[in-house]
Amino acid sequence: MPPRNAFPQKTRHGRAPSPAASTFIRPSVRRLRPYVPGEQPKIRGLIKLNTNENPYPPSPRVLAAIRAAVDGRLRLYPNPTAEALRRRLAALHGCAPENLIVGNGSDELLALASRAFVEPASVPLGTRARRARATIQYFTPSYSLYPVLADIHGARRNPVPLNPDFSLPSLRGLELGKRWEWDAALTYVTTPNAPCGRGYATADLGRLCGAQRGVVLLDEAYADFAEDNALRLGLERPNVIVARTFSKAYALCHQRVGYAVGPETLIDAMHRIRDSYNVNGLGQVAALATLDDPGYYRANLRRVVASRQRLGHALAELGFDVLPSQTNFLLARPPGPPAQTWLERLRARRILVRWWDDPSVRDYLRISIGTEAEVDTLIGTVKRLLRSAGPGQRRAR
Amino acid sequence: MPPRNAFPQKTRHGRAPSPAASTFIRPSVRRLRPYVPGEQPKIRGLIKLNTNENPYPPSPRVLAAIRAAVDGRLRLYPNPTAEALRRRLAALHGCAPENLIVGNGSDELLALASRAFVEPASVPLGTRARRARATIQYFTPSYSLYPVLADIHGARRNPVPLNPDFSLPSLRGLELGKRWEWDAALTYVTTPNAPCGRGYATADLGRLCGAQRGVVLLDEAYADFAEDNALRLGLERPNVIVARTFSKAYALCHQRVGYAVGPETLIDAMHRIRDSYNVNGLGQVAALATLDDPGYYRANLRRVVASRQRLGHALAELGFDVLPSQTNFLLARPPGPPAQTWLERLRARRILVRWWDDPSVRDYLRISIGTEAEVDTLIGTVKRLLRSAGPGQRRAR
Repeated sequence: MPPRNAFPQKTRHGRAPSPAASTFIRPSVRRLRPYVPGEQPKIRGLIKLNTNENPYPPSPRVLAAIRAAVDGRLRLYPNPTAEALRRRLAALHGCAPENLIVGNGSDELLALASRAFVEPASVPLGTRARRARATIQYFTPSYSLYPVLADIHGARRNPVPLNPDFSLPSLRGLELGKRWEWDAALTYVTTPNAPCGRGYATADLGRLCGAQRGVVLLDEAYADFAEDNALRLGLERPNVIVARTFSKAYALCHQRVGYAVGPETLIDAMHRIRDSYNVNGLGQVAALATLDDPGYYRANLRRVVASRQRLGHALAELGFDVLPSQTNFLLARPPGPPAQTWLERLRARRILVRWWDDPSVRDYLRISIGTEAEVDTLIGTVKRLLRSAGPGQRRAR
Repeated sequence: MPPRNAFPQKTRHGRAPSPAASTFIRPSVRRLRPYVPGEQPKIRGLIKLNTNENPYPPSPRVLAAIRAAVDGRLRLYPNPTAEALRRRLAALHGCAPENLIVGNGSDELLALASRAFVEPASVPLGTRARRARATIQYFTPSYSLYPVLADIHGARRNPVPLNPDFSLPSLRGLELGKRWEWDAALTYVTTPNAPCGRGYATADLGRLCGAQRGVVLLDEAYADFAEDNALRLGLERPNVIVARTFSKAYALCHQRVGYAVGPETLIDAMHRIRDSYNVNGLGQVAALATLDDPGYYRANLRRVVASRQRLGHALAELGFDVLPSQTNFLLARPPGPPAQTWLERLRARRILVRWWDDPSVRDYLRISIGTEAEVDTLIGTVKRLLRSAGPGQRRAR
């Protein structure tokens, strides 16, 4: 109990000292560099290839299902565990509803994992075991949210580079590199990788997860665009959680629905610490209806993959260094002027792509796959930019 | 870097030891008793008076606005800061958009405050100052989520009893009680209070906030049903945040939209640590459209308040001890059998109310205000239960 004199008499008369408001804020939060989402500008006619949204709308049946749910029931709380959706997903993936948690987008699930499995490092870390329990590990480059999640939670970060070509290091390579920590409390792996687009073989991921003594969260936001996925690792391994989203392949960014599959004990820990009603009701309706129309989405996924191949070939012919992709975007190093200049010139022509001022990817643009027409426009614009730069510029790398 | 022998050779051949999955989970999360939301049963004809939902649907204009937004745009991310909604709310409350943060329901905002302003107490607390920085303080009874948020974050809890009649202790009373901590990092105050329904005078809250040296979050989930509110304290005081929700008064539980008003520095800290796209797009549309139809909601608020008065009088005449309410629910001590028995008997007659097995409120039922017809049915059912219990039972307290 505070001593009697803790009571600030003055404030009873409205004369309390006003400390600088920032003293109320945790020092770690004050220091934080927040995650910067891609722009969502409202520019007419903009071709928006910067945040990996699906170029095609949700299925008409999904839109109809949402509209049909817009009535007086909105006054009621949604199902707190997204029960119907978890049942459907469980049937789809051959597991129990207890192996599933639905989130307010998969971002929420990534954050929940940090809070469920990692101790904040607000203490001198002391022993190696204590340090490991406070460590969030991830490859670079990958989803730039991970270090932010570590900082928000006050965890220790351990970023470990991918191979120079962005492929996954072997266990032997990680061992030789000496930076990987086999006992990190939580390891995030983006697979297929963002921002590079590469897919990783499930066998390789399985070896990594098997060797890891902490939790591994396989962040499969783009898995639906890939030839392979590692979902079964979430069902087989005691330490693996696989996160998925309805945002990208299922065109529901707006509605914030993601899910994670994993061992019941780990999933239960995430349930225990989430908000009570974390997934909005129309989002649950939309996700359920999505699962009722797989044909529509398969057709669109094929279109995206075909456009990805066409765009990749076209850019390669124009002198871009295009990385192989298993996602709905391409990472490509443009010829001639710096990537940042390309970003600006494309933007001036109403095409928005993504660029990061980070050593690992500074030379690259990340280009989301648009509709066929958007891909045509992009290719045409790139050709015109190369022509206007002239042959001298093109060799000027 | 881990020593070379940290590498678990065996696992390369798939023979890793499988530790009990629970060892992956933070001990504090394993120990956690999660918040239990009120039931959302699917029973035909059920009169649902257990979770303080609005008995009336959202405005037809709100429903129309949501339906009009259900199209291909769902493929796009929503505005990451709910910018249009923040601008509208800023105009409504006479502040800047920077004084506002929108959340996935106000529950998210309560949780964000714990993470922005309170240090996890994962260390021996040592000095008094360190203990204060790790403390979450709240009155009992109030919203039963607060201790859970403290536990989730690993903060120290400081529950302090309200006066026996659930009124707010005076500063002098808190001082004499010796349990209140004037330097707690974060204090949650539910005002009007849930589960008791009492409203607190803004002047009293102002004195409390002025005396408090940490952040005070005034949780005004029910303020729209009250005669007074303390929103201005969030605009005037350097340490006060006021949380509001579209769930209750604006019948949008399903869509998960709440907001908080406070000093820019504190609000900014909460923005820094939230998920990038924390508020679903149709929720933003719904909340904006709600602000366009104040007449509809004012009329419904008046109906709820009238029903509250009518139900309160009727229950009092039937022998209930009914607390004064400034919310859309009543806390009432039933005559005769224990409150839990009343809960069960009402449920058997398809009327669902709320009861907590907690010493402070065990003798009470919390009854959300329903439609006029639901209130009629409740009163009729209570009369029949009292008759069937017989006069002996009625005196048997």
